[in-house]
Amino acid sequence: MLTQEGCLARRIRLWESVPDTYEWLLVADPRHVLYLSNFMVHPLTFSAGERCWLLLQRDGRATLLGDNFTLRSRAGVPFVDDEVMVKWYDHQHSVINRDHALLAATEQIADRLFGRAGAVEAEWLPVGAFELLGLDHEHHSVRREAKDIGQRGAVDLGTTLRGLRRQKHPDEIALLKECMRAGEAGMLRLREIIRPGISEFEIFREIHAATLAAAGRPCLIYGDFRAANGSKPKVGGLPTDYKLQPGDMFTLDYSVVLDGYRSDFTNCLTVGEPSLDQQRLFDLVSAAQRAGEAVCRAGTKARDVFHAVNQPILEAGLAAHFAHHAGHGIGLAHPEAPILVPESDDVLMAGDVVTLEPGLYVEGLGGLRIEHNYRITDAGYERLSNHVISLT
Amino acid sequence: MLTQEGCLARRIRLWESVPDTYEWLLVADPRHVLYLSNFMVHPLTFSAGERCWLLLQRDGRATLLGDNFTLRSRAGVPFVDDEVMVKWYDHQHSVINRDHALLAATEQIADRLFGRAGAVEAEWLPVGAFELLGLDHEHHSVRREAKDIGQRGAVDLGTTLRGLRRQKHPDEIALLKECMRAGEAGMLRLREIIRPGISEFEIFREIHAATLAAAGRPCLIYGDFRAANGSKPKVGGLPTDYKLQPGDMFTLDYSVVLDGYRSDFTNCLTVGEPSLDQQRLFDLVSAAQRAGEAVCRAGTKARDVFHAVNQPILEAGLAAHFAHHAGHGIGLAHPEAPILVPESDDVLMAGDVVTLEPGLYVEGLGGLRIEHNYRITDAGYERLSNHVISLT
Repeated sequence: MLTQEGCLARRIRLWESVPDTYEWLLVADPRHVLYLSNFMVHPLTFSAGERCWLLLQRDGRATLLGDNFTLRSRAGVPFVDDEVMVKWYDHQHSVINRDHALLAATEQIADRLFGRAGAVEAEWLPVGAFELLGLDHEHHSVRREAKDIGQRGAVDLGTTLRGLRRQKHPDEIALLKECMRAGEAGMLRLREIIRPGISEFEIFREIHAATLAAAGRPCLIYGDFRAANGSKPKVGGLPTDYKLQPGDMFTLDYSVVLDGYRSDFTNCLTVGEPSLDQQRLFDLVSAAQRAGEAVCRAGTKARDVFHAVNQPILEAGLAAHFAHHAGHGIGLAHPEAPILVPESDDVLMAGDVVTLEPGLYVEGLGGLRIEHNYRITDAGYERLSNHVISLT
Repeated sequence: MLTQEGCLARRIRLWESVPDTYEWLLVADPRHVLYLSNFMVHPLTFSAGERCWLLLQRDGRATLLGDNFTLRSRAGVPFVDDEVMVKWYDHQHSVINRDHALLAATEQIADRLFGRAGAVEAEWLPVGAFELLGLDHEHHSVRREAKDIGQRGAVDLGTTLRGLRRQKHPDEIALLKECMRAGEAGMLRLREIIRPGISEFEIFREIHAATLAAAGRPCLIYGDFRAANGSKPKVGGLPTDYKLQPGDMFTLDYSVVLDGYRSDFTNCLTVGEPSLDQQRLFDLVSAAQRAGEAVCRAGTKARDVFHAVNQPILEAGLAAHFAHHAGHGIGLAHPEAPILVPESDDVLMAGDVVTLEPGLYVEGLGGLRIEHNYRITDAGYERLSNHVISLT
């Protein structure tokens, strides 16, 4: 889980990114509430899908707003100074609309905002809450139109936070590593169970069980759990009942989600011994990944990483069969900046955590993808994922 | 999954619940988008936590609004007439703030609303989207304050939909039954594995595996996976590393979530043969459940169901040890109306799906709870859950 030190450091960076005149920030995207306070509604509780909001004040005070049941469905200890909680359910009376308890909690902080400059996260704070707070647009509290971002001086909290999220803090790296260790257990399990006749869904179940055992606590997994072959070289998403056949290639590209953070790496195993063609495709994506690694360091343009990865594939005359990104940032969402694509405007920064994931999908031959995760440094990178990449 | 017939029937009920003058409804709670269109972002995809919104127009037209990746991360086929999709990511360029793609999609439907009466779901539609639509409050499009609901004629869509949700349609019942069949498999698995020395977390893993196998597709589970005993009679929530001891009581109260709908039932097993005290507690909650069943029918006050369930416990002098609801509605959230508690204002209606879940938690003796799920009818009820309730 995130640490108090990390949450406080992220809040300092946020305050440094908004105008000096701002006295409060009302954060409403659940990912950003987590990022700044370690509060998230556990996705495996009955409150999944409910929300709390975070009020930050310039004097350092942090306040969570929510109903009593949502606040208690937290995944970890939130690092805040106080909670404004409105009782929604007491095991004695009928329930009201649960959202109205959250709105009522929000109304209680209206006097902390009134007449003071600040900003709400306008992509997430509902209009019903905004109205209860008695805010108007002269507070610069919301941007008025998407196209005005950065043009009229109104701070777009959501976009600002996305920028800050690129530079991962030590507690975020620790959490990503925890996801990766669990993900590696799933990769290992795939090697033990892959065989002709096993279904994609059975594989999913085995991988989930192995991931859960390694994580040591409830987690979510998602990704691609599909078998490819010459007639269907590019497949993805959740598993089907399809039973693996000799000659298939099973690309396991999956994420383990713990406390909102997610790893994201890949290997491909053949069902049976690889053919010469399969081996050739594999050697090519391996070379592509190494070529990407060779240019990964702070300051490299994201588009140049793409072109480095693409170069061996281009030389082999297969560039048309590598039709997706060469990698992207990971963290609280997918994909995140920096985006390693041909027209990217991003530049690698120290603290970015990215994937490198060359893939090839060739009609008549098959499809595969491999992927590692890396923390970008000034000198190069630290590879964070440790699974074995090989066809058998 | 929900059916087209069901979605259309629910939309008709919704239109019947709003003023005749309304020409459009903008639905933003992800649960309600699902309820009315069968669109939900699959929680086991990289888009988990993202959102799409649903515009309904009086002529019957239904339109989904979203970014290209969120729309394709759907759990099932949405029953809508069109989609307004804004490209967020194309594997060629850097990404913008993903929420801005959703806001840009929303802006595209502004002309369908302008100058026409309608309502937005004000607890979920962000202020940023509301502003882009150019709406004002004279459209009666949002309530202004929580306390005004029902007092000034402004329709509160979220509360209206919660009212409609009580009466389950056939497709919702079918989905709940699918959850229940998978949940019963977990209940059965617990009987096979319970023993001294097994940890709560190992039990969770086994139950998840059995549930997944029975469901035949990815699902979520949540609930209480904890062992109780005389020194800790009331425990709940996600599992710990605690290893079961002889004499413990393991109450498995868990929900299986498929396509947003959730079952919710319970049994308690003793570790080893039950003691006389444990058997006495069990007999009492069984009598309480039967007493509740005896009064379950449309028209019964929810508080009277509570008192019926509580009566045997009261007579045994243990009423202070039954300190929670006697049951509640299930469906898309937890708990839902009707709430079976002493001060409830709810009245059972045909089509309600409820739990009956008496529990007793006695210092020095132990704690247990049992629970079934029922569909309320005019004549009584149909019991929907089929797991065996017994201590061994």
